[in-house]
Amino acid sequence: MLRARGSGRRPVMLAIAGDSAAGKTTLTRGLVQCLGADRMTAVCVDDYHRYDRAERAGKPFTALHPDCNHIDIMEQHLQLLSMGEPILKPVYDHSTGELVRPELVEPRDFVIVEGLLPLHTRMARACFDITVYLDPPEPLRHSWKVRRDCEKRGYSPEQVMAELARREPESAAYIRPQRKHADIVVRFAPVAERLDPPGTPLSAELLLRPTIDHPELVDVLDGGPGDTETAMHLRLHRDTDGRPVDALHVHGYVSPEESQVVKKAIWERLGPRAGAALPDPEALGRLGDAGTSDPLAITQLLLLYHLLDADHRQAA
Amino acid sequence: MLRARGSGRRPVMLAIAGDSAAGKTTLTRGLVQCLGADRMTAVCVDDYHRYDRAERAGKPFTALHPDCNHIDIMEQHLQLLSMGEPILKPVYDHSTGELVRPELVEPRDFVIVEGLLPLHTRMARACFDITVYLDPPEPLRHSWKVRRDCEKRGYSPEQVMAELARREPESAAYIRPQRKHADIVVRFAPVAERLDPPGTPLSAELLLRPTIDHPELVDVLDGGPGDTETAMHLRLHRDTDGRPVDALHVHGYVSPEESQVVKKAIWERLGPRAGAALPDPEALGRLGDAGTSDPLAITQLLLLYHLLDADHRQAA
Repeated sequence: MLRARGSGRRPVMLAIAGDSAAGKTTLTRGLVQCLGADRMTAVCVDDYHRYDRAERAGKPFTALHPDCNHIDIMEQHLQLLSMGEPILKPVYDHSTGELVRPELVEPRDFVIVEGLLPLHTRMARACFDITVYLDPPEPLRHSWKVRRDCEKRGYSPEQVMAELARREPESAAYIRPQRKHADIVVRFAPVAERLDPPGTPLSAELLLRPTIDHPELVDVLDGGPGDTETAMHLRLHRDTDGRPVDALHVHGYVSPEESQVVKKAIWERLGPRAGAALPDPEALGRLGDAGTSDPLAITQLLLLYHLLDADHRQAA
Repeated sequence: MLRARGSGRRPVMLAIAGDSAAGKTTLTRGLVQCLGADRMTAVCVDDYHRYDRAERAGKPFTALHPDCNHIDIMEQHLQLLSMGEPILKPVYDHSTGELVRPELVEPRDFVIVEGLLPLHTRMARACFDITVYLDPPEPLRHSWKVRRDCEKRGYSPEQVMAELARREPESAAYIRPQRKHADIVVRFAPVAERLDPPGTPLSAELLLRPTIDHPELVDVLDGGPGDTETAMHLRLHRDTDGRPVDALHVHGYVSPEESQVVKKAIWERLGPRAGAALPDPEALGRLGDAGTSDPLAITQLLLLYHLLDADHRQAA
């Protein structure tokens, strides 16, 4: 009985899961800017809190716990969006900690769903065409969270550190297990063995699991056994659980020329599916007010590849 | 992909449509008390306002207009409830005129949906097993609305009368056309040709359309051509549009003995489906703090008949 979009096509659904302050918003923002808000709907599933801040104060769990969220309604809304249906989405006001008036969300051609638990259940995962898990090193994520929550949400550093400690068992139990369900695991981090000059962007390590078809990049990236010295390389890798993955490294010191070669290669793999030229490079790789990053730009471009590729498959 | 209830049975869905202050809440309350809140979920679809009171002030329509409501979301939620799924229902606070935090609604065995527009669209109507339209004479409804809105919502009588006048074109265009889609049209009114003593309850006229199977009552109610003089009678009737209906009249001056005969007859028609004795008579026919009414009790009992009958059919 539920209606499909007029065209009969369902939206392409992308999940970006990760812990608090893992970089979900930064990654999402560039994708929306690139495809345009008229084609892209972004939804944050952290709005599905069952309790407001005052109510949570008396509970034995944090906002990360599935029992603290309307997981069944989140699943239902993800299903509706994946069928092209509108939803009346709950809204959590981070500044006041209150649950407020819900908002109408109508899925456009592409729907990005970001948040703490979008990949927690099998039914939620089944709604997505592409799944991403953001996996920065914990010390780096903690520093991002302290900065954001102090600047934008009015907490003190001590409060944020205490909250991080309180959340750790639930991060381990519910957030990090989602990593294994992602088609792509993204880790932005400094490169351990190098001392880059100040201002060098973080490097990106992208684990590309064989659960979706990635663009063929071996010819432009595989420089042979000595390629760990180059700014970008693709290597076969065993993940922490022993499963094989491709690991794409993009170092922060990559030159604009080198990164342009890879961007063009990713885009050309779309062939006629791309439909147009490389997306506006101004929209890609932007770090809020902190400049730009080629590793971020290439990550976003890879996700755009998958969005357009999935859209093309649905149209076929 | 949507899940059914554990038992695999879907809830029985009853719609009670009618204009503002037509008596929807009074009718619903007795049904919920009778079957018990553990078996019955009541939902008011007037919470699906698209705009809050302040926003509506600048619009060229009133809260009655479909464009003033999330009709598509109402349809979606009715479908979900009819499939046994929970919903996160929007909430409109009548005292402040604000849209506030939504609430989780989980359908139980029976779902009563009351409001201004539950029968407005074909898809909404398709969700119901039984549909009722409350159709009191307009002057009576106006007096009810003045009393309620002044006592409970803080308006002056002049404000309520002005609002009724402002709403009249939309009542005619969107509310009253739902009457033709009801299986049962209920009109509580004084009997024109009689001068009942003060305190006599309003009479009920129930139009029973052949769109659902009503309990067979001819033998207890059809007193022949002269039966218009009895306190209760069932007559073939042409509706205002010429379509044939049964019209069940229960006059306000009906004696407890007479009404008891009809109540028992309705209940016995359920046979083993009733499963138990006549429901607690204390819950039926209650007019808030204004005493009780046998015409209301018989109306509620007829609706209980249909709820249990539909439940039995689904189980079969």
